[in-house]
Amino acid sequence: MGKVIFGVDLGGTTVKMGYFDTEGNVKDKWEIPTRKDENGKNILPDIAASIKKKMAEQGMEKNDVIGVGIGVPGPVDANGVIYKAANLGWDVFSVKEELAVLLGGIPVEAGNDANVAALGEMWQGGGRGYKNLVAVTLGTGVGGGIIVEGKILTGATGAGGEIGHIHIVEDEPETCGCGNHGCLEQYASATGIARLAKRRLAKDDKASVLRSGEISAKTVFDAVKAGDELAKEVAKEFGMYLGKGLAAVACVVNPEIFVIGGGVSKAGDVLFEYIVDEYKKYVFRGSRDAKFALATLGNDAGIYGAAKLVLG
Amino acid sequence: MGKVIFGVDLGGTTVKMGYFDTEGNVKDKWEIPTRKDENGKNILPDIAASIKKKMAEQGMEKNDVIGVGIGVPGPVDANGVIYKAANLGWDVFSVKEELAVLLGGIPVEAGNDANVAALGEMWQGGGRGYKNLVAVTLGTGVGGGIIVEGKILTGATGAGGEIGHIHIVEDEPETCGCGNHGCLEQYASATGIARLAKRRLAKDDKASVLRSGEISAKTVFDAVKAGDELAKEVAKEFGMYLGKGLAAVACVVNPEIFVIGGGVSKAGDVLFEYIVDEYKKYVFRGSRDAKFALATLGNDAGIYGAAKLVLG
Repeated sequence: MGKVIFGVDLGGTTVKMGYFDTEGNVKDKWEIPTRKDENGKNILPDIAASIKKKMAEQGMEKNDVIGVGIGVPGPVDANGVIYKAANLGWDVFSVKEELAVLLGGIPVEAGNDANVAALGEMWQGGGRGYKNLVAVTLGTGVGGGIIVEGKILTGATGAGGEIGHIHIVEDEPETCGCGNHGCLEQYASATGIARLAKRRLAKDDKASVLRSGEISAKTVFDAVKAGDELAKEVAKEFGMYLGKGLAAVACVVNPEIFVIGGGVSKAGDVLFEYIVDEYKKYVFRGSRDAKFALATLGNDAGIYGAAKLVLG
Repeated sequence: MGKVIFGVDLGGTTVKMGYFDTEGNVKDKWEIPTRKDENGKNILPDIAASIKKKMAEQGMEKNDVIGVGIGVPGPVDANGVIYKAANLGWDVFSVKEELAVLLGGIPVEAGNDANVAALGEMWQGGGRGYKNLVAVTLGTGVGGGIIVEGKILTGATGAGGEIGHIHIVEDEPETCGCGNHGCLEQYASATGIARLAKRRLAKDDKASVLRSGEISAKTVFDAVKAGDELAKEVAKEFGMYLGKGLAAVACVVNPEIFVIGGGVSKAGDVLFEYIVDEYKKYVFRGSRDAKFALATLGNDAGIYGAAKLVLG
């Protein structure tokens, strides 16, 4: 048996796990529940136990395992120290060292979950073949992961790639989850797209299929595909804000490619019709030819990226 | 004699040169003219000749020189290839390889001049002691240099750190040098500050010392220091735009410190009174405690940074 790497994606409800060969082929994947009680003190022991069990089942010895990578939902610095993860009840400690001890000295690497997922998309997903990449997750919020020369850009306090909080709109009355007003996330997330649609519907009486039934990012883009003019106006506004935000990102890091994932990306290539022209309009010419692609690994991006963390 | 590193800062009119010990102490510095005729074909040979002459004068052998670093006014990729420098008449070629050949095999490293100056400020200037830094040059334009974990962020096409072209203002009638409208550079450069002042003066008849004499970034900040209310309004507007732009930069790269240089920075610490509060207002909380400092190396930042390029 060739050497393997374990990848762990620690979420608020479940821990996704898998192991990979060095070529990036997933050999097995599974999940365990995230036990958040008692300030999450069981989480790392549970993960270590699950890895050891898998190793025993597969007849793996310690030196068959190159290492274990883990993505965690909070800011993680370049030394694998997490600075609080409220969602898990965790305070400040070295995830990297603590998990390595629990695994009897198998090397561990740790990173922020969004950044690690970006690395996964670079390794085996929509960004394959590129080393300078920005992964954009359009879900409940807008997350980002910046990869520079093949490495995660962590930042001084693990807040690198927080592109959802770039200020985009003046005079926004509603407050973003971060406490500011007018963040990109307020317009380009799934929630944000629904907000734009509701505001557009309230503006006048223009006919739209969106006037009946649920309003969500999915129903908006379904309506766009069905030719609904009002939905297209909403998509245009979304694309203008996101294009402008990604142009700002490109003026800073000048990526080769943007890889768009998260629930909103299920709308598919139609997104690019609304994002790319606006991006090109606002960006500096040196970044005008950046590529755009859809993420392809879905919920597995985290375990792929965690494994890649170990390979460096 | 200990080993030395040469640093070269290639500008449109003069080439600044110096050599350093490995601790970052400058041992000598001088300038030669930049000969731009015949598509700049003499520039690198002139530089090589000047270095060889200095080596001969000082009795240096080839293996006394660790290497030569050079900053050039155009986009340079991670391999030391320049992608055109219109100002010098240069097309696409490897500055790194060509200069190394001219120097008989002394190792050469090349980078973009703004990025290299940022590295200089990190090494021996206003950003000393930090590894995650954004250098902001407020001159005729607004330039930037991003340092991540002690290394220049070059970007896919050498356009990393082009923060002057982040889109900041809607409906700007004037065109930026880059062809876009509403770039940060149009409000936060020396030219931009003068523009803001002229627009403010035209708005009404409010008294101001700026109503007589020349209007420049210098006269505006001199007036601010003298307590001129209209000049303070202009400074407030400048600070709002720059604070907002730097907040966007921080949402992407989460630096430890911003180091502000260029002609406008001669105004001194008063700048921070106008920038920092606005920055904190717009930035994501993970970057709220980033520090601000003035650049200290002035026109020598380029030769320092070029030498540091060689040391890695």
